[in-house]
Amino acid sequence: MKLDKGVGLVETKYETVAVPPNDLQLECGTRFGPVTVAYETYGELNDRGDNCILVLHALTGDAHVAGWHSEEDRKPGWWHDLIGPGRALDTGKYFVVCSNVLGGCYGTTGPPSINPDTGKFYGPDFPVITIRDMVKVQYLLLKKLGVKHIKAAIGGSMGGMQVLEWAMMYPGMLDAVIPIATSGRLSAQCIAFNAVQRQAILMDPEYKEGRYEPGKGPCRGLALARQIGTITYKSDESWAFKFGRTFSSLREEDYYCFDGKFEVENYLDYQGEKLVKRFDANSYLYLTKAMDLHDISRGRGNYSKVFSRFRGKVLTIGISSDFLYPKHYQEEIYRYFKDNGAESYYWELESPYGHDAFLIEFDKMSRKIGQFMATIS
Amino acid sequence: MKLDKGVGLVETKYETVAVPPNDLQLECGTRFGPVTVAYETYGELNDRGDNCILVLHALTGDAHVAGWHSEEDRKPGWWHDLIGPGRALDTGKYFVVCSNVLGGCYGTTGPPSINPDTGKFYGPDFPVITIRDMVKVQYLLLKKLGVKHIKAAIGGSMGGMQVLEWAMMYPGMLDAVIPIATSGRLSAQCIAFNAVQRQAILMDPEYKEGRYEPGKGPCRGLALARQIGTITYKSDESWAFKFGRTFSSLREEDYYCFDGKFEVENYLDYQGEKLVKRFDANSYLYLTKAMDLHDISRGRGNYSKVFSRFRGKVLTIGISSDFLYPKHYQEEIYRYFKDNGAESYYWELESPYGHDAFLIEFDKMSRKIGQFMATIS
Repeated sequence: MKLDKGVGLVETKYETVAVPPNDLQLECGTRFGPVTVAYETYGELNDRGDNCILVLHALTGDAHVAGWHSEEDRKPGWWHDLIGPGRALDTGKYFVVCSNVLGGCYGTTGPPSINPDTGKFYGPDFPVITIRDMVKVQYLLLKKLGVKHIKAAIGGSMGGMQVLEWAMMYPGMLDAVIPIATSGRLSAQCIAFNAVQRQAILMDPEYKEGRYEPGKGPCRGLALARQIGTITYKSDESWAFKFGRTFSSLREEDYYCFDGKFEVENYLDYQGEKLVKRFDANSYLYLTKAMDLHDISRGRGNYSKVFSRFRGKVLTIGISSDFLYPKHYQEEIYRYFKDNGAESYYWELESPYGHDAFLIEFDKMSRKIGQFMATIS
Repeated sequence: MKLDKGVGLVETKYETVAVPPNDLQLECGTRFGPVTVAYETYGELNDRGDNCILVLHALTGDAHVAGWHSEEDRKPGWWHDLIGPGRALDTGKYFVVCSNVLGGCYGTTGPPSINPDTGKFYGPDFPVITIRDMVKVQYLLLKKLGVKHIKAAIGGSMGGMQVLEWAMMYPGMLDAVIPIATSGRLSAQCIAFNAVQRQAILMDPEYKEGRYEPGKGPCRGLALARQIGTITYKSDESWAFKFGRTFSSLREEDYYCFDGKFEVENYLDYQGEKLVKRFDANSYLYLTKAMDLHDISRGRGNYSKVFSRFRGKVLTIGISSDFLYPKHYQEEIYRYFKDNGAESYYWELESPYGHDAFLIEFDKMSRKIGQFMATIS
């Protein structure tokens, strides 16, 4: 992570959209609203409102993509190195927007939000949402912000699913899309990994059918879900390099007991605990379910043909060591866009870090994404 | 699975070994015994006692490798097609032996067995065991059966770990070893997957610190552990082929609710429930821990050099689509045996089935293993 300034001091802002009677028609059939949206912007929107870059975040991400929130706590956003003056997503030219997704727990309306009709937390009464519903909310936010046109939509994993839905739902509004480490419809293996993570949460007695107090709830279950997820975000090679078989105790007797742990186990524990402090279990359930339902061809006909909706530029990025979203899924996205008339490119990010590489390999990604952005007028 | 006879009707037999005062010195330091060993044999031991083939089973496997237990229930053993007259492991020539591992729950002494000192189940008082401890018990069994020499030891996954420890512990007793889809020391990624599976069991309130009644206990936790394991035993390709995104209900409303499931989820549920009926949660904890501790170099010096202990023939088999035990671990085993003077071969089993391929691809394996066995005098 570079320590230079980038976009510097930023703040999370809030807008309310989908206010009844103009509330949101969700895919599940329910009408829903109002929706508060937490978002951040970097750079300036031009007069024509056509210089927007839309960044979409992954499962446990948030709107804080770049810069920091206070000079005391300079914790940079999750793509800090990619965004700023002169960077790959150049805030000297572009108006960069990222918002927390519908169903999330970082300021946008989701299960831990108060239901205005009841004065209580939505919890398990929150409707089942889809990637398309998230995109609709983002569209309403951009309209409110005065954005007329998007230069590029970019995101990895669940963010990449939103990128693809943007291309399907509002193709005329976008010049380019950059889906990373994602797929056009969630694979059976990914559904399986999501299912076991949800079960970890559901079997925690503290889950209480979702009616726990926000901030409390199924801590062990959520931690375990995160641990399972964490394994899938890395690679055999990265685990081997980072931890190998290092044991966390030098006492021989610890080796032959269940409390004795390998360093990789301590790391998983730490990752689990860290997420529990920052994430809501119901949000985790709803967002993984939204991923499961992700299929850009649903209700739109043949999968290979649905790509014809978007004829702009496409840069699809696959990661060499990603076993959760193997690169053939990204090659497929590239090919189907190309076969259907888009100007489509594929780039393989050579990295040992597995699925997480798109949150780590800033230098390599900056170069490639910067080059691609330079081709967009 | 071929429906021909193979070894036909067989039965599980039992021997008691490690009877005090000649009980077993476990690696953890504890002395332990007596140990009942459940085992099966196919073919006849010759007069010199030197025509044995030792088959070693994986995590939830058992001694029932071939044939069936009754004419009414012709459920064949887990490697039925590989074993029989004229087959790859030819019972016309060889005396094939397989026993349930120490710590297991299929007849060999393990956590669900009665502790003769207390009259109660061992449960969590069972000592932490290792792959080497399992091999010691197998050695004692073979001695009792009159086996003087082993033509080949063969097994996949945890079975392969035992194969490698046989080569390290009793090298003079073996002509050949066939480790399949395994590693010389468990990888950090495998430890991580084992750790989350154990946590699933431990967080089930019915676990009761391991003091549940055998046959009862942490059913949900064990089922979840098995589901996680099941995902790692397959491949993205095999999940895609078998289930894709098939949804298990035709009702639109089921799609947008948490009870609605994809077929892959139902399959995982089924696999979880099936294991709960046949396996003990404490055994699951102890055997995965034994795998974590697996490292053929522990206490023996440099990993790459420890292979020099065995100078016989080696056929190491890797599986092209295995992401749990990626093939480079088997290539490493092959190379280190070769570099240290063994007659070492590597064969890649081309298969889309992932780690489980060694329990599925009988035809391909029969051919290759049969060829290799033909070279052993």
